[in-house]
Amino acid sequence: MDMKAFTIRCLSDIRANAPLIHNITNFVVMNSSANILLALGASPVMAHAREEAEDMTRLASALVLNIGTLEKQWVESMILAGKSANRKGIPVVLDPVGAGATPYRTNTAKQILSECKVDIVRGNASEVLALWDDQVITRGVDSSCSLSDNIAETLVTIAKINGIILAVSGEEDCITDGKETYRVKNGHPLMTKVTGLGCGLSAVTAAFAAVEPRNLLCSVTAAFGFYGLCGEMSAKGCTRPGSFSSAFIDSLYAGGENEIMAALKTDGPF
Amino acid sequence: MDMKAFTIRCLSDIRANAPLIHNITNFVVMNSSANILLALGASPVMAHAREEAEDMTRLASALVLNIGTLEKQWVESMILAGKSANRKGIPVVLDPVGAGATPYRTNTAKQILSECKVDIVRGNASEVLALWDDQVITRGVDSSCSLSDNIAETLVTIAKINGIILAVSGEEDCITDGKETYRVKNGHPLMTKVTGLGCGLSAVTAAFAAVEPRNLLCSVTAAFGFYGLCGEMSAKGCTRPGSFSSAFIDSLYAGGENEIMAALKTDGPF
Amino acid sequence: MDMKAFTIRCLSDIRANAPLIHNITNFVVMNSSANILLALGASPVMAHAREEAEDMTRLASALVLNIGTLEKQWVESMILAGKSANRKGIPVVLDPVGAGATPYRTNTAKQILSECKVDIVRGNASEVLALWDDQVITRGVDSSCSLSDNIAETLVTIAKINGIILAVSGEEDCITDGKETYRVKNGHPLMTKVTGLGCGLSAVTAAFAAVEPRNLLCSVTAAFGFYGLCGEMSAKGCTRPGSFSSAFIDSLYAGGENEIMAALKTDGPF
Repeated sequence: MDMKAFTIRCLSDIRANAPLIHNITNFVVMNSSANILLALGASPVMAHAREEAEDMTRLASALVLNIGTLEKQWVESMILAGKSANRKGIPVVLDPVGAGATPYRTNTAKQILSECKVDIVRGNASEVLALWDDQVITRGVDSSCSLSDNIAETLVTIAKINGIILAVSGEEDCITDGKETYRVKNGHPLMTKVTGLGCGLSAVTAAFAAVEPRNLLCSVTAAFGFYGLCGEMSAKGCTRPGSFSSAFIDSLYAGGENEIMAALKTDGPF
Repeated sequence: MDMKAFTIRCLSDIRANAPLIHNITNFVVMNSSANILLALGASPVMAHAREEAEDMTRLASALVLNIGTLEKQWVESMILAGKSANRKGIPVVLDPVGAGATPYRTNTAKQILSECKVDIVRGNASEVLALWDDQVITRGVDSSCSLSDNIAETLVTIAKINGIILAVSGEEDCITDGKETYRVKNGHPLMTKVTGLGCGLSAVTAAFAAVEPRNLLCSVTAAFGFYGLCGEMSAKGCTRPGSFSSAFIDSLYAGGENEIMAALKTDGPF
Repeated sequence: MDMKAFTIRCLSDIRANAPLIHNITNFVVMNSSANILLALGASPVMAHAREEAEDMTRLASALVLNIGTLEKQWVESMILAGKSANRKGIPVVLDPVGAGATPYRTNTAKQILSECKVDIVRGNASEVLALWDDQVITRGVDSSCSLSDNIAETLVTIAKINGIILAVSGEEDCITDGKETYRVKNGHPLMTKVTGLGCGLSAVTAAFAAVEPRNLLCSVTAAFGFYGLCGEMSAKGCTRPGSFSSAFIDSLYAGGENEIMAALKTDGPF
């Protein structure tokens, strides 16, 4: 797999077809996730009511479930939408925001995983590991943990046992389905100073998965690579989070073949 | 009616009086609609609880009902607020976001229309036509439909039968009350790449209606013209959606007589 | 107390320790408050479900309760979180957005004050005075009231009677615990043209309080001074609200010792 060519093709497909991405996501990032998807070339829709969650998912090409500002009724809709996505056969991305921080978040994310088939979990290491804490041997993980080889091995094991893609953001990203693992070295520290850029990556991951549903592992890797690359592009001119945030949206819109050929940094499969 | 002079007068009234616009709107655009109204010179307020919806409407000069992220309790509040607005005699703008996409949205928008007097429906053609699908002869409408003469005729018929102003955004906008019709040719394609700019236009429409409640058709036309003009102004310096979005807010704040005299493009009445 | 040195130390502590600020806040400003806290150097978290409100507060170093888009269940969670904060002994900031505008808002803010110990109320004069309307002698206050000596005296009296810090934004800010009073003259009119900057100040106040919980009155004054100063810095290059808004986030991130030494304008204690 030539990841550069593959990433260019995914991006081109997204821009040509504007896949509809159904987001049941948190209040903090609804606006930013919508703008991120629009700038990328996809079509966002947000719809969380029980009365329409399934209907909206049926129109979509991928589903994002994000637990950042949980509420009982939202969880019910997430599960309805997840099942609807499963019936249609479209990719489902779960972003377990804050899993591990409170029991409610951890338990809700586990419930979603048990009641519908999630294809991809996108989060940081502590969030992702919290979802399978009974299967994790490594301990002492916190949100600032770097993706040591130890943690990466644990992720591979969890992905294999559970038949799921784990896509973990960090200084170096790790994307694995338990059989093959990719590493992505794109990104910029300023991305952690703008709220919702992690959640935005989950939405972008869904857009890439939507256009390459038969090659999910590579499409997730491509999403991570391009997204991190946009961070790097934006940080060239903007060294502060307010102006960086605008520039990042501009990069998602304008970035393409030239930048990908010059600076995409993916390794793998291992 | 000299539309340029009228638009300048509306804008000047908004900036002088800062009319309070009550928005019961969707989660995606609450922040952007508030910023759009503030930049324009109006005063936004968001309040959706049943316990205060009527009270807040009583303080306002116009009401915006936007169904972009529906929920049962919100619909109840929208209707309470709508009735409160009717009692006070202030303009009510309905933005039927996504009507036609799911039955829940279509039915909810119809319910709002039947339970309170909506003065202006602002949406794209497919959304607006979905609300009167039993009265529509033309078929095969989708969200990308341009405002063909065929559709415009249908809109005129619906407006006349229902005694309502239909304000439909498209490459060329169409605003009609069934008796007279205006066309607006201002706008820029980048406006579709920033989330919430359609919803923002509904809010701006309410602000213009608030200062010219006895001349609603012209005030809506003025709102559409000025808003599109701000899009054009912003696109001169900014060709990407992140920076365009900031520039658009700046244009709403700084745009005025000079730009309106030079570039407002409204036609009508027909 | 050397307020410049104190402000520099608070800011440095925030940037070094990234205190977690738990926000139960309104839909309009969730994104902007998160970005404001991140740019400042703090860590924002939003969590409003009854199931996790107490747990999340236990992890935090300060709590913000903001009633801008009220709802029954949110109020219950605010009170649970407030009690959890009281048990832990972390500062609680209440932003009574719109108190006085509807009975529901006024009554809810009063209920929060009666059911948990709020350390700091941050709002404009009309909102703050509405919470103790039975103790207010001065009448005829509206949202545009300037902080006349008359009002300032009333605030001092209320603060003293109720053992609370009142932090009131206006052309000149007034921060009092009833024993000592500070005035802050930093700020810029453009700050009123961007939605959520008042709410953002409540969040920033919580961050300053988090790092100086034993010196709340000074930490609030420092927060107001630095925040207003960031407004002034931003307005130097940006005279319109869209670009000003980005610049303001940049200033919160980049502002520091030089700007504070040159331009912090606090007076007191009186």
